[in-house]
Amino acid sequence: MAKSSQLLDNEALRAYATYATIVLLKMMLMSLITAYFRITRKAFVNPEDAASFGKGEGAKKYLRTDQDVERARRGHLNDLENIVPFLGIGLLYALSGPELSTALMHFRIFAGSRIFHTLAYLIPLPQPGRGLSWAAGYAVTISMAYKVLKTVLYL
Amino acid sequence: MAKSSQLLDNEALRAYATYATIVLLKMMLMSLITAYFRITRKAFVNPEDAASFGKGEGAKKYLRTDQDVERARRGHLNDLENIVPFLGIGLLYALSGPELSTALMHFRIFAGSRIFHTLAYLIPLPQPGRGLSWAAGYAVTISMAYKVLKTVLYL
Amino acid sequence: MAKSSQLLDNEALRAYATYATIVLLKMMLMSLITAYFRITRKAFVNPEDAASFGKGEGAKKYLRTDQDVERARRGHLNDLENIVPFLGIGLLYALSGPELSTALMHFRIFAGSRIFHTLAYLIPLPQPGRGLSWAAGYAVTISMAYKVLKTVLYL
Repeated sequence: MAKSSQLLDNEALRAYATYATIVLLKMMLMSLITAYFRITRKAFVNPEDAASFGKGEGAKKYLRTDQDVERARRGHLNDLENIVPFLGIGLLYALSGPELSTALMHFRIFAGSRIFHTLAYLIPLPQPGRGLSWAAGYAVTISMAYKVLKTVLYL
Repeated sequence: MAKSSQLLDNEALRAYATYATIVLLKMMLMSLITAYFRITRKAFVNPEDAASFGKGEGAKKYLRTDQDVERARRGHLNDLENIVPFLGIGLLYALSGPELSTALMHFRIFAGSRIFHTLAYLIPLPQPGRGLSWAAGYAVTISMAYKVLKTVLYL
Repeated sequence: MAKSSQLLDNEALRAYATYATIVLLKMMLMSLITAYFRITRKAFVNPEDAASFGKGEGAKKYLRTDQDVERARRGHLNDLENIVPFLGIGLLYALSGPELSTALMHFRIFAGSRIFHTLAYLIPLPQPGRGLSWAAGYAVTISMAYKVLKTVLYL
């Protein structure tokens, strides 16, 4: 069989690998942002976490929600909801033999839309900034799904 | 190496690509359903979203939870929890050389179970409708995982 | 083309398939744990679910949150947030031609960290037990992402 390293010799697959890794790293960054807000705002949900910042009754007051923590968490969940479809559909799209330039355009728009979405969520920017960035990523995912289904449809 | 388009010449992989894309598109639909309920019920979580529907104090009354919005969100999260395992295990299963007819049966039951699950959640149907549709998708995923581990186990 | 079953002849890919399946099965187990707590604690969120345990007003008192249910749900969401990056980055890493022993070390640490994380969350263990197990899985995912980007970078 082909050596596994050759599986990534295909340029569209290499582009997919690059952008998929970038958006996943960006999504992972949300964990650190949430942790940062939890610690600086002293807003925890697990008693064993709050216990690091106070003893007994003193710790209980840190079991609370905070607007910045919740905002980071919503951004994280929105990433999951949109990056999971990109991971699956994007891989199948890269395997379906797209034009390299078209594939790159799809991947770049998606990665850009998710990075802008996070900024729009955390700053926060007034709408429709966040909405439009979400829609751009959504639209290119639908476009890739259309190409996949047109190429491989096997029901 | 083989051209990338040939990677999807295998029929089990094509079937996987088709059904994976379908369930991901169905999951993406949950975003639109949530947005539809948020806008028609005027129930938002971000102040900058509510601001499109009223100014100052007028917007604050739209920062609230709504039963239909929450129901759509729970359906979306349940999709994530079940479709992510299908994406990973289903791909490995398709690569493990299954009988085509067996693979198609697994993929069809899974896609059907998730579509029925969404209907059962949104209508909502009385239990055990939603529970059974969830269990069907869960069971075929376990069945595929068993085949994968039997074929490739390398600890 | 190569037969699809041969795609999994590569040892690093077989190791990935094994550990990806294990962590996904572990994640799926969270659904059963949540359901177990919901039923034994009688704590539901959907009226149609509570209706199985009481009629009319009797069912309404079961529409409540429970600490054990919420803990299992948080563990499940944390799995999603961390296992999704592992699935994507781990696959690309396995395709990037790593040393088998290095790949195995990454996969084993990740699987171990997620299993320990779940135990630390559910028991619960005092911090930093859960934090360190989360960090171990996070660190090996970053390490794999670095290898992927170094091998395939195509922006």
